[in-house]
Amino acid sequence: MKLLRYGPAGAEKPGILDAAGRIRDLSGVSPDLEGEAVGLAALDRLRAIDPESLPPVAGEPRIGACVARTPTFHCVGLNYVNHAKESGMAPPTEPVLFNKAASALCGPFEPIIQPKGSTKLDYEVELGIVIGARTQHISEADALSAVAGYCVINDVSERAFQNERLGQWVKGKSSPNFGPTGPWLVTADEVPDPQALGCWLTVNGEDRQRSSTADMIFSVREIVSYLSRFMVLMPGDLIATGTPEGVAMGMTPQAWLTPGDEVRLGIDGLGEQAQTVVAFPG
Amino acid sequence: MKLLRYGPAGAEKPGILDAAGRIRDLSGVSPDLEGEAVGLAALDRLRAIDPESLPPVAGEPRIGACVARTPTFHCVGLNYVNHAKESGMAPPTEPVLFNKAASALCGPFEPIIQPKGSTKLDYEVELGIVIGARTQHISEADALSAVAGYCVINDVSERAFQNERLGQWVKGKSSPNFGPTGPWLVTADEVPDPQALGCWLTVNGEDRQRSSTADMIFSVREIVSYLSRFMVLMPGDLIATGTPEGVAMGMTPQAWLTPGDEVRLGIDGLGEQAQTVVAFPG
Repeated sequence: MKLLRYGPAGAEKPGILDAAGRIRDLSGVSPDLEGEAVGLAALDRLRAIDPESLPPVAGEPRIGACVARTPTFHCVGLNYVNHAKESGMAPPTEPVLFNKAASALCGPFEPIIQPKGSTKLDYEVELGIVIGARTQHISEADALSAVAGYCVINDVSERAFQNERLGQWVKGKSSPNFGPTGPWLVTADEVPDPQALGCWLTVNGEDRQRSSTADMIFSVREIVSYLSRFMVLMPGDLIATGTPEGVAMGMTPQAWLTPGDEVRLGIDGLGEQAQTVVAFPG
Repeated sequence: MKLLRYGPAGAEKPGILDAAGRIRDLSGVSPDLEGEAVGLAALDRLRAIDPESLPPVAGEPRIGACVARTPTFHCVGLNYVNHAKESGMAPPTEPVLFNKAASALCGPFEPIIQPKGSTKLDYEVELGIVIGARTQHISEADALSAVAGYCVINDVSERAFQNERLGQWVKGKSSPNFGPTGPWLVTADEVPDPQALGCWLTVNGEDRQRSSTADMIFSVREIVSYLSRFMVLMPGDLIATGTPEGVAMGMTPQAWLTPGDEVRLGIDGLGEQAQTVVAFPG
Protein backbone atom coordinates (compact mmCIF):
# COMPACT_ATOMS: atom_id res chain seq x y z
CA MET A 1 0.00 0.00 0.00
CA LYS A 2 0.98 3.61 -0.59
CA LEU A 3 -0.50 5.63 2.26
CA LEU A 4 -0.45 9.41 2.44
CA ARG A 5 -1.97 12.43 4.11
CA TYR A 6 -3.70 15.07 2.02
CA GLY A 7 -5.42 18.38 2.57
CA PRO A 8 -4.60 21.70 4.24
CA ALA A 9 -1.66 21.82 6.68
CA GLY A 10 -2.85 20.85 10.12
CA ALA A 11 -6.08 19.36 8.80
CA GLU A 12 -4.77 16.50 6.69
CA LYS A 13 -6.83 13.35 6.10
CA PRO A 14 -5.45 9.85 5.59
CA GLY A 15 -5.52 8.51 2.05
CA ILE A 16 -4.35 5.60 -0.06
CA LEU A 17 -3.31 5.38 -3.69
CA ASP A 18 -5.45 3.06 -5.81
CA ALA A 19 -4.13 0.93 -8.68
CA ALA A 20 -4.50 3.91 -11.03
CA GLY A 21 -2.46 6.17 -8.71
CA ARG A 22 -5.53 8.11 -7.63
CA ILE A 23 -5.97 9.17 -4.00
CA ARG A 24 -8.81 7.46 -2.12
CA ASP A 25 -10.10 8.83 1.18
CA LEU A 26 -9.21 6.60 4.15
CA SER A 27 -10.74 8.86 6.78
CA GLY A 28 -13.84 6.69 7.06
CA VAL A 29 -11.78 3.64 7.99
CA SER A 30 -8.61 5.03 9.65
CA PRO A 31 -7.69 7.82 12.03
CA ASP A 32 -4.87 10.15 11.00
CA LEU A 33 -1.64 8.30 10.13
CA GLU A 34 0.21 8.46 13.45
CA GLY A 35 1.12 6.11 16.27
CA GLU A 36 -0.94 2.92 16.30
CA ALA A 37 -2.68 3.95 13.06
CA VAL A 38 0.56 2.99 11.28
CA GLY A 39 1.10 0.01 13.57
CA LEU A 40 1.32 -3.42 11.99
CA ALA A 41 -2.17 -4.48 13.12
CA ALA A 42 -3.78 -1.35 11.69
CA LEU A 43 -1.95 -1.85 8.40
CA ASP A 44 -3.23 -5.43 8.22
CA ARG A 45 -6.78 -4.12 8.64
CA LEU A 46 -6.24 -1.58 5.85
CA ARG A 47 -4.77 -4.27 3.59
CA ALA A 48 -8.07 -6.12 3.74
CA ILE A 49 -9.92 -3.15 2.21
CA ASP A 50 -10.27 -2.76 -1.55
CA PRO A 51 -9.10 0.80 -2.32
CA GLU A 52 -11.62 0.92 -5.17
CA SER A 53 -14.37 0.74 -2.55
CA LEU A 54 -13.19 4.01 -0.95
CA PRO A 55 -14.29 7.50 -2.05
CA PRO A 56 -11.96 9.02 -4.66
CA VAL A 57 -10.47 12.40 -3.81
CA ALA A 58 -11.13 15.11 -6.38
CA GLY A 59 -8.50 17.47 -7.75
CA GLU A 60 -4.87 17.68 -6.69
CA PRO A 61 -4.85 18.31 -2.98
CA ARG A 62 -1.78 19.39 -1.03
CA ILE A 63 0.21 16.39 0.28
CA GLY A 64 1.37 16.47 3.91
CA ALA A 65 4.02 14.41 5.68
CA CYS A 66 3.04 10.74 5.28
CA VAL A 67 3.16 10.28 9.06
CA ALA A 68 1.90 12.80 11.62
CA ARG A 69 3.24 13.65 15.07
CA THR A 70 6.09 11.18 15.06
CA PRO A 71 6.89 10.33 18.70
CA THR A 72 10.63 10.64 18.03
CA PHE A 73 12.37 11.72 14.83
CA HIS A 74 15.55 9.62 14.82
CA CYS A 75 18.44 10.17 12.43
CA VAL A 76 21.54 8.16 11.56
CA GLY A 77 24.65 10.10 10.59
CA LEU A 78 27.54 9.29 8.28
CA ASN A 79 25.99 6.05 7.03
CA TYR A 80 27.61 6.05 3.58
CA VAL A 81 31.40 5.75 3.27
CA ASN A 82 31.80 8.49 0.68
CA HIS A 83 29.58 10.91 2.64
CA ALA A 84 31.68 10.34 5.77
CA LYS A 85 34.79 11.08 3.68
CA GLU A 86 33.35 14.27 2.13
CA SER A 87 32.37 15.35 5.67
CA GLY A 88 35.98 14.91 6.78
CA MET A 89 34.96 12.14 9.19
CA ALA A 90 36.07 8.54 9.50
CA PRO A 91 33.41 5.97 8.53
CA PRO A 92 31.73 5.07 11.82
CA THR A 93 32.29 1.70 13.49
CA GLU A 94 28.74 1.72 14.89
CA PRO A 95 25.72 3.87 13.99
CA VAL A 96 25.89 7.56 14.89
CA LEU A 97 22.48 8.70 16.19
CA PHE A 98 20.96 12.13 16.53
CA ASN A 99 17.52 13.72 16.41
CA LYS A 100 15.39 16.27 14.67
CA ALA A 101 12.81 18.22 16.66
CA ALA A 102 9.31 16.91 15.89
CA SER A 103 8.33 20.39 14.72
CA ALA A 104 10.71 20.04 11.74
CA LEU A 105 8.45 17.40 10.13
CA CYS A 106 6.62 18.68 7.04
CA GLY A 107 5.15 17.69 3.70
CA PRO A 108 7.29 16.70 0.72
CA PHE A 109 6.43 19.78 -1.37
CA GLU A 110 6.67 22.49 1.32
CA PRO A 111 9.25 25.23 0.83
CA ILE A 112 12.64 24.80 2.48
CA ILE A 113 12.75 27.86 4.75
CA GLN A 114 16.28 29.21 5.14
CA PRO A 115 16.61 29.99 8.86
CA LYS A 116 17.44 33.47 10.07
CA GLY A 117 21.24 33.75 10.17
CA SER A 118 21.77 30.67 7.99
CA THR A 119 24.84 30.67 5.74
CA LYS A 120 25.34 26.93 5.07
CA LEU A 121 22.00 25.43 4.06
CA ASP A 122 22.23 21.86 2.77
CA TYR A 123 20.12 18.90 1.60
CA GLU A 124 20.30 15.15 2.22
CA VAL A 125 18.21 12.52 0.41
CA GLU A 126 17.56 9.66 2.82
CA LEU A 127 15.61 6.44 3.07
CA GLY A 128 13.10 6.88 5.90
CA ILE A 129 11.94 3.96 8.05
CA VAL A 130 8.50 4.09 9.69
CA ILE A 131 8.32 1.89 12.78
CA GLY A 132 5.20 -0.27 13.11
CA ALA A 133 5.49 -1.82 16.57
CA ARG A 134 6.78 -1.13 20.07
CA THR A 135 10.27 -2.54 19.71
CA GLN A 136 13.09 -3.18 22.17
CA HIS A 137 16.16 -5.43 21.85
CA ILE A 138 15.14 -6.85 18.50
CA SER A 139 17.73 -8.97 16.68
CA GLU A 140 19.02 -8.02 13.27
CA ALA A 141 17.39 -11.19 11.92
CA ASP A 142 13.97 -10.07 13.17
CA ALA A 143 14.36 -6.31 12.76
CA LEU A 144 12.41 -5.92 9.51
CA SER A 145 9.34 -7.34 11.26
CA ALA A 146 9.14 -4.07 13.23
CA VAL A 147 9.04 -1.92 10.10
CA ALA A 148 5.69 -0.55 8.91
CA GLY A 149 7.17 0.84 5.74
CA TYR A 150 9.49 3.28 4.05
CA CYS A 151 9.44 6.82 2.71
CA VAL A 152 11.62 9.55 1.27
CA ILE A 153 13.07 12.08 3.75
CA ASN A 154 15.08 15.18 2.96
CA ASP A 155 17.23 15.65 6.06
CA VAL A 156 17.61 19.40 5.50
CA SER A 157 20.60 20.69 7.44
CA GLU A 158 22.25 23.98 8.39
CA ARG A 159 25.93 23.08 8.63
CA ALA A 160 27.06 26.13 10.58
CA PHE A 161 24.34 25.49 13.19
CA GLN A 162 25.17 21.77 13.16
CA ASN A 163 28.95 21.91 13.37
CA GLU A 164 30.01 25.35 14.58
CA ARG A 165 27.62 25.98 17.48
CA LEU A 166 29.09 23.76 20.17
CA GLY A 167 28.14 20.20 20.66
CA GLN A 168 25.33 18.12 19.36
CA TRP A 169 23.90 18.18 15.83
CA VAL A 170 20.21 18.78 16.66
CA LYS A 171 20.72 22.57 16.35
CA GLY A 172 21.36 22.26 12.61
CA LYS A 173 18.67 19.69 11.91
CA SER A 174 15.49 21.03 13.51
CA SER A 175 14.41 24.29 11.91
CA PRO A 176 10.81 24.44 10.60
CA ASN A 177 10.40 22.48 7.35
CA PHE A 178 13.78 20.75 7.79
CA GLY A 179 12.00 17.38 7.62
CA PRO A 180 10.12 16.88 4.31
CA THR A 181 8.72 13.34 4.59
CA GLY A 182 6.74 11.47 1.94
CA PRO A 183 4.88 11.68 -0.38
CA TRP A 184 3.92 8.14 0.62
CA LEU A 185 4.41 5.64 3.36
CA VAL A 186 5.06 2.57 1.20
CA THR A 187 4.33 -0.47 3.31
CA ALA A 188 7.17 -2.93 3.81
CA ASP A 189 5.51 -5.70 1.79
CA GLU A 190 6.00 -3.52 -1.32
CA VAL A 191 9.73 -3.05 -0.62
CA PRO A 192 11.20 -6.54 -0.90
CA ASP A 193 14.80 -5.32 -0.44
CA PRO A 194 15.34 -1.95 1.26
CA GLN A 195 19.05 -2.26 0.48
CA ALA A 196 18.55 -2.12 -3.29
CA LEU A 197 16.90 1.25 -3.81
CA GLY A 198 18.37 3.89 -6.06
CA CYS A 199 18.17 7.42 -4.64
CA TRP A 200 18.92 10.80 -6.17
CA LEU A 201 18.71 14.52 -5.58
CA THR A 202 19.05 17.47 -7.95
CA VAL A 203 19.37 21.21 -7.37
CA ASN A 204 18.08 23.39 -10.22
CA GLY A 205 18.14 20.30 -12.42
CA GLU A 206 21.82 19.53 -11.70
CA ASP A 207 22.65 16.09 -10.33
CA ARG A 208 23.98 16.34 -6.77
CA GLN A 209 23.33 12.95 -5.19
CA ARG A 210 22.93 9.65 -7.03
CA SER A 211 23.49 6.46 -5.10
CA SER A 212 21.82 3.34 -3.78
CA THR A 213 20.84 2.13 -0.35
CA ALA A 214 23.13 -0.81 -1.20
CA ASP A 215 25.98 1.51 -0.20
CA MET A 216 24.80 2.02 3.39
CA ILE A 217 27.41 1.15 6.02
CA PHE A 218 24.68 -0.03 8.43
CA SER A 219 21.64 -1.66 6.85
CA VAL A 220 18.01 -1.09 7.84
CA ARG A 221 18.17 -4.33 9.83
CA GLU A 222 21.27 -3.20 11.69
CA ILE A 223 19.92 0.29 12.35
CA VAL A 224 16.59 -0.88 13.78
CA SER A 225 18.26 -3.53 15.92
CA TYR A 226 20.91 -1.08 17.14
CA LEU A 227 18.47 1.69 18.12
CA SER A 228 16.28 -0.83 19.92
CA ARG A 229 19.16 -1.61 22.29
CA PHE A 230 19.32 1.98 23.53
CA MET A 231 15.65 2.97 23.51
CA VAL A 232 12.17 1.67 22.85
CA LEU A 233 11.03 2.37 19.30
CA MET A 234 7.35 3.26 19.01
CA PRO A 235 4.76 2.94 16.23
CA GLY A 236 5.04 6.05 14.09
CA ASP A 237 8.69 6.73 14.96
CA LEU A 238 10.66 7.89 11.93
CA ILE A 239 14.28 6.96 11.29
CA ALA A 240 16.22 8.87 8.63
CA THR A 241 18.95 6.42 7.69
CA GLY A 242 21.70 8.74 6.49
CA THR A 243 22.62 10.29 3.17
CA PRO A 244 25.06 9.34 0.42
CA GLU A 245 27.77 11.64 -0.93
CA GLY A 246 27.05 14.78 -2.89
CA VAL A 247 25.86 17.21 -0.24
CA ALA A 248 26.75 20.88 -0.66
CA MET A 249 29.17 20.70 2.28
CA GLY A 250 31.28 18.18 0.39
CA MET A 251 31.57 20.17 -2.85
CA THR A 252 34.48 22.37 -3.95
CA PRO A 253 33.45 25.12 -3.75
CA GLN A 254 30.61 24.39 -1.34
CA ALA A 255 27.37 25.12 -3.21
CA TRP A 256 24.97 25.92 -0.37
CA LEU A 257 21.26 26.22 -1.04
CA THR A 258 20.00 29.79 -1.44
CA PRO A 259 16.51 31.23 -1.90
CA GLY A 260 15.05 30.38 -5.26
CA ASP A 261 16.86 27.05 -5.58
CA GLU A 262 14.70 24.13 -6.68
CA VAL A 263 15.44 20.81 -4.96
CA ARG A 264 14.09 17.53 -6.28
CA LEU A 265 14.74 14.10 -4.82
CA GLY A 266 13.43 10.57 -4.96
CA ILE A 267 13.96 6.95 -4.10
CA ASP A 268 13.00 3.97 -6.31
CA GLY A 269 9.41 2.98 -5.59
CA LEU A 270 8.94 5.52 -2.81
CA GLY A 271 8.08 8.58 -4.90
CA GLU A 272 9.55 12.03 -5.35
CA GLN A 273 9.72 15.30 -3.46
CA ALA A 274 10.19 18.87 -4.75
CA GLN A 275 11.02 21.93 -2.67
CA THR A 276 11.79 25.56 -3.38
CA VAL A 277 14.16 27.34 -1.02
CA VAL A 278 12.71 30.54 0.44
CA ALA A 279 14.20 33.18 2.71
CA PHE A 280 13.08 33.40 6.32
CA PRO A 281 10.00 35.64 6.24
CA GLY A 282 10.35 39.23 7.42
CA MET B 1 -1.86 25.47 39.83
CA LYS B 2 -0.28 22.10 40.40
CA LEU B 3 -1.43 19.84 37.56
CA LEU B 4 -0.76 16.13 37.39
CA ARG B 5 -1.75 12.89 35.74
CA TYR B 6 -2.96 10.00 37.85
CA GLY B 7 -4.09 6.44 37.33
CA PRO B 8 -2.74 3.31 35.65
CA ALA B 9 0.12 3.69 33.15
CA GLY B 10 -1.28 4.43 29.73
CA ALA B 11 -4.70 5.35 31.12
CA GLU B 12 -3.87 8.41 33.21
CA LYS B 13 -6.42 11.14 33.84
CA PRO B 14 -5.63 14.82 34.33
CA GLY B 15 -5.88 16.14 37.88
CA ILE B 16 -5.19 19.21 39.95
CA LEU B 17 -4.14 19.62 43.58
CA ASP B 18 -6.61 21.54 45.72
CA ALA B 19 -5.63 23.86 48.58
CA ALA B 20 -5.43 20.89 50.95
CA GLY B 21 -3.08 19.02 48.59
CA ARG B 22 -5.77 16.55 47.54
CA ILE B 23 -6.10 15.42 43.94
CA ARG B 24 -9.23 16.62 42.12
CA ASP B 25 -10.32 15.05 38.83
CA LEU B 26 -9.88 17.38 35.85
CA SER B 27 -11.06 14.89 33.25
CA GLY B 28 -14.49 16.51 33.04
CA VAL B 29 -12.98 19.86 32.06
CA SER B 30 -9.66 19.02 30.34
CA PRO B 31 -8.32 16.43 27.93
CA ASP B 32 -5.12 14.63 28.92
CA LEU B 33 -2.24 17.01 29.71
CA GLU B 34 -0.46 17.17 26.37
CA GLY B 35 -0.01 19.63 23.54
CA GLU B 36 -2.57 22.42 23.53
CA ALA B 37 -4.07 21.12 26.82
CA VAL B 38 -1.00 22.62 28.53
CA GLY B 39 -1.03 25.65 26.24
CA LEU B 40 -1.38 29.07 27.83
CA ALA B 41 -5.02 29.51 26.76
CA ALA B 42 -6.04 26.14 28.22
CA LEU B 43 -4.26 26.96 31.48
CA ASP B 44 -6.13 30.26 31.68
CA ARG B 45 -9.41 28.36 31.32
CA LEU B 46 -8.40 25.95 34.10
CA ARG B 47 -7.36 28.85 36.31
CA ALA B 48 -10.95 30.13 36.24
CA ILE B 49 -12.23 26.88 37.80
CA ASP B 50 -12.45 26.46 41.58
CA PRO B 51 -10.66 23.15 42.32
CA GLU B 52 -13.08 22.58 45.21
CA SER B 53 -15.86 22.29 42.64
CA LEU B 54 -14.17 19.27 41.03
CA PRO B 55 -14.61 15.63 42.13
CA PRO B 56 -12.02 14.55 44.71
CA VAL B 57 -9.97 11.47 43.82
CA ALA B 58 -10.12 8.70 46.40
CA GLY B 59 -7.10 6.85 47.73
CA GLU B 60 -3.51 7.28 46.61
CA PRO B 61 -3.42 6.60 42.88
CA ARG B 62 -0.26 6.10 40.88
CA ILE B 63 1.15 9.38 39.52
CA GLY B 64 2.24 9.50 35.88
CA ALA B 65 4.46 11.97 34.07
CA CYS B 66 2.88 15.41 34.48
CA VAL B 67 2.85 15.89 30.69
CA ALA B 68 2.01 13.18 28.15
CA ARG B 69 3.41 12.55 24.68
CA THR B 70 5.80 15.50 24.64
CA PRO B 71 6.37 16.46 20.99
CA THR B 72 10.11 16.82 21.59
CA PHE B 73 12.07 16.05 24.77
CA HIS B 74 14.84 18.65 24.73
CA CYS B 75 17.83 18.62 27.07
CA VAL B 76 20.53 21.14 27.88
CA GLY B 77 23.96 19.76 28.80
CA LEU B 78 26.72 21.09 31.05
CA ASN B 79 24.65 24.01 32.33
CA TYR B 80 26.30 24.28 35.76
CA VAL B 81 29.99 25.25 36.01
CA ASN B 82 30.88 22.61 38.59
CA HIS B 83 29.10 19.85 36.67
CA ALA B 84 31.01 20.77 33.51
CA LYS B 85 34.23 20.58 35.55
CA GLU B 86 33.38 17.20 37.09
CA SER B 87 32.56 15.94 33.58
CA GLY B 88 36.01 16.99 32.39
CA MET B 89 34.49 19.55 30.02
CA ALA B 90 34.97 23.30 29.68
CA PRO B 91 31.93 25.35 30.71
CA PRO B 92 30.06 25.94 27.46
CA THR B 93 29.99 29.35 25.79
CA GLU B 94 26.49 28.72 24.44
CA PRO B 95 23.88 26.09 25.38
CA VAL B 96 24.68 22.48 24.48
CA LEU B 97 21.49 20.79 23.24
CA PHE B 98 20.59 17.14 22.92
CA ASN B 99 17.47 14.96 23.10
CA LYS B 100 15.84 12.08 24.87
CA ALA B 101 13.60 9.72 22.92
CA ALA B 102 9.95 10.41 23.74
CA SER B 103 9.61 6.82 24.93
CA ALA B 104 11.93 7.57 27.89
CA LEU B 105 9.26 9.78 29.52
CA CYS B 106 7.74 8.22 32.65
CA GLY B 107 6.18 8.95 36.01
CA PRO B 108 8.17 10.30 38.98
CA PHE B 109 7.90 7.11 41.05
CA GLU B 110 8.55 4.48 38.35
CA PRO B 111 11.56 2.22 38.79
CA ILE B 112 14.80 3.22 37.09
CA ILE B 113 15.40 0.23 34.81
CA GLN B 114 19.10 -0.49 34.36
CA PRO B 115 19.51 -1.20 30.64
CA LYS B 116 20.91 -4.49 29.40
CA GLY B 117 24.69 -4.12 29.26
CA SER B 118 24.72 -0.98 31.42
CA THR B 119 27.77 -0.44 33.62
CA LYS B 120 27.64 3.31 34.28
CA LEU B 121 24.11 4.22 35.35
CA ASP B 122 23.75 7.78 36.64
CA TYR B 123 21.17 10.34 37.85
CA GLU B 124 20.70 14.06 37.24
CA VAL B 125 18.22 16.29 39.09
CA GLU B 126 17.04 18.99 36.69
CA LEU B 127 14.55 21.83 36.48
CA GLY B 128 12.11 20.97 33.70
CA ILE B 129 10.43 23.63 31.57
CA VAL B 130 7.03 22.90 29.99
CA ILE B 131 6.42 25.03 26.89
CA GLY B 132 2.98 26.65 26.62
CA ALA B 133 2.93 28.21 23.16
CA ARG B 134 4.25 27.74 19.65
CA THR B 135 7.46 29.73 19.95
CA GLN B 136 10.08 30.84 17.44
CA HIS B 137 12.71 33.59 17.70
CA ILE B 138 11.53 34.82 21.08
CA SER B 139 13.74 37.36 22.85
CA GLU B 140 15.25 36.65 26.26
CA ALA B 141 13.12 39.48 27.63
CA ASP B 142 9.91 37.80 26.44
CA ALA B 143 10.96 34.15 26.84
CA LEU B 144 9.16 33.44 30.12
CA SER B 145 5.86 34.31 28.42
CA ALA B 146 6.18 31.06 26.44
CA VAL B 147 6.52 28.92 29.57
CA ALA B 148 3.48 26.99 30.81
CA GLY B 149 5.25 25.90 33.97
CA TYR B 150 7.97 23.88 35.61
CA CYS B 151 8.54 20.39 36.94
CA VAL B 152 11.19 18.07 38.34
CA ILE B 153 13.02 15.84 35.83
CA ASN B 154 15.55 13.12 36.59
CA ASP B 155 17.70 13.03 33.44
CA VAL B 156 18.72 9.41 34.00
CA SER B 157 21.87 8.64 32.01
CA GLU B 158 24.04 5.69 31.04
CA ARG B 159 27.51 7.21 30.73
CA ALA B 160 29.12 4.38 28.75
CA PHE B 161 26.28 4.54 26.20
CA GLN B 162 26.46 8.36 26.22
CA ASN B 163 30.19 8.87 25.94
CA GLU B 164 31.81 5.66 24.70
CA ARG B 165 29.50 4.63 21.85
CA LEU B 166 30.54 7.07 19.12
CA GLY B 167 28.96 10.40 18.68
CA GLN B 168 25.87 12.01 20.03
CA TRP B 169 24.52 11.68 23.58
CA VAL B 170 20.99 10.45 22.80
CA LYS B 171 22.15 6.82 23.10
CA GLY B 172 22.79 7.23 26.82
CA LYS B 173 19.70 9.29 27.58
CA SER B 174 16.80 7.42 26.03
CA SER B 175 16.30 4.02 27.65
CA PRO B 176 12.80 3.26 29.00
CA ASN B 177 12.13 5.13 32.27
CA PHE B 178 15.13 7.40 31.77
CA GLY B 179 12.82 10.43 31.99
CA PRO B 180 10.93 10.60 35.32
CA THR B 181 8.92 13.84 35.07
CA GLY B 182 6.71 15.35 37.77
CA PRO B 183 4.95 14.82 40.10
CA TRP B 184 3.39 18.13 39.13
CA LEU B 185 3.38 20.67 36.38
CA VAL B 186 3.53 23.81 38.52
CA THR B 187 2.24 26.70 36.45
CA ALA B 188 4.62 29.59 35.91
CA ASP B 189 2.54 32.04 37.96
CA GLU B 190 3.45 30.01 41.05
CA VAL B 191 7.19 30.16 40.28
CA PRO B 192 8.05 33.87 40.54
CA ASP B 193 11.79 33.28 40.01
CA PRO B 194 12.86 30.04 38.29
CA GLN B 195 16.50 31.01 39.02
CA ALA B 196 16.10 30.78 42.80
CA LEU B 197 15.05 27.16 43.33
CA GLY B 198 17.00 24.82 45.58
CA CYS B 199 17.39 21.32 44.13
CA TRP B 200 18.73 18.12 45.65
CA LEU B 201 19.17 14.42 45.05
CA THR B 202 20.04 11.58 47.40
CA VAL B 203 20.99 7.94 46.82
CA ASN B 204 20.14 5.59 49.67
CA GLY B 205 19.72 8.64 51.89
CA GLU B 206 23.19 10.03 51.11
CA ASP B 207 23.40 13.56 49.73
CA ARG B 208 24.68 13.52 46.15
CA GLN B 209 23.43 16.75 44.59
CA ARG B 210 22.50 19.95 46.44
CA SER B 211 22.47 23.18 44.50
CA SER B 212 20.26 25.96 43.22
CA THR B 213 19.01 26.99 39.82
CA ALA B 214 20.78 30.28 40.63
CA ASP B 215 23.97 28.49 39.57
CA MET B 216 22.86 27.78 36.01
CA ILE B 217 25.22 29.07 33.33
CA PHE B 218 22.30 29.76 30.97
CA SER B 219 19.03 30.85 32.60
CA VAL B 220 15.55 29.66 31.67
CA ARG B 221 15.10 32.89 29.69
CA GLU B 222 18.32 32.30 27.78
CA ILE B 223 17.58 28.61 27.13
CA VAL B 224 14.07 29.19 25.77
CA SER B 225 15.22 32.10 23.61
CA TYR B 226 18.24 30.14 22.34
CA LEU B 227 16.30 26.99 21.41
CA SER B 228 13.68 29.09 19.64
CA ARG B 229 16.34 30.34 17.21
CA PHE B 230 17.08 26.83 15.98
CA MET B 231 13.65 25.21 16.05
CA VAL B 232 10.00 25.90 16.77
CA LEU B 233 9.06 25.01 20.35
CA MET B 234 5.59 23.50 20.69
CA PRO B 235 3.03 23.38 23.52
CA GLY B 236 3.88 20.38 25.65
CA ASP B 237 7.57 20.34 24.71
CA LEU B 238 9.77 19.54 27.71
CA ILE B 239 13.19 21.06 28.28
CA ALA B 240 15.48 19.53 30.91
CA THR B 241 17.76 22.42 31.80
CA GLY B 242 20.90 20.62 32.96
CA THR B 243 22.13 19.25 36.26
CA PRO B 244 24.41 20.60 38.97
CA GLU B 245 27.51 18.83 40.27
CA GLY B 246 27.38 15.60 42.24
CA VAL B 247 26.57 12.99 39.59
CA ALA B 248 28.09 9.53 39.99
CA MET B 249 30.38 10.13 37.00
CA GLY B 250 32.05 12.99 38.88
CA MET B 251 32.76 11.08 42.11
CA THR B 252 36.01 9.39 43.16
CA PRO B 253 35.47 6.49 42.97
CA GLN B 254 32.52 6.74 40.59
CA ALA B 255 29.48 5.48 42.52
CA TRP B 256 27.21 4.26 39.72
CA LEU B 257 23.61 3.31 40.46
CA THR B 258 22.99 -0.41 40.88
CA PRO B 259 19.81 -2.44 41.40
CA GLY B 260 18.28 -1.84 44.80
CA ASP B 261 19.49 1.76 45.07
CA GLU B 262 16.88 4.27 46.21
CA VAL B 263 17.01 7.66 44.48
CA ARG B 264 15.12 10.66 45.85
CA LEU B 265 15.17 14.14 44.36
CA GLY B 266 13.28 17.39 44.53
CA ILE B 267 13.15 21.06 43.68
CA ASP B 268 11.73 23.81 45.90
CA GLY B 269 8.01 24.19 45.24
CA LEU B 270 7.94 21.58 42.46
CA GLY B 271 7.65 18.44 44.58
CA GLU B 272 9.71 15.31 45.00
CA GLN B 273 10.41 12.10 43.11
CA ALA B 274 11.50 8.67 44.38
CA GLN B 275 12.81 5.79 42.27
CA THR B 276 14.21 2.36 42.96
CA VAL B 277 16.81 1.00 40.57
CA VAL B 278 15.90 -2.40 39.12
CA ALA B 279 17.78 -4.75 36.82
CA PHE B 280 16.67 -5.17 33.21
CA PRO B 281 14.03 -7.89 33.34
CA GLY B 282 14.92 -11.37 32.14
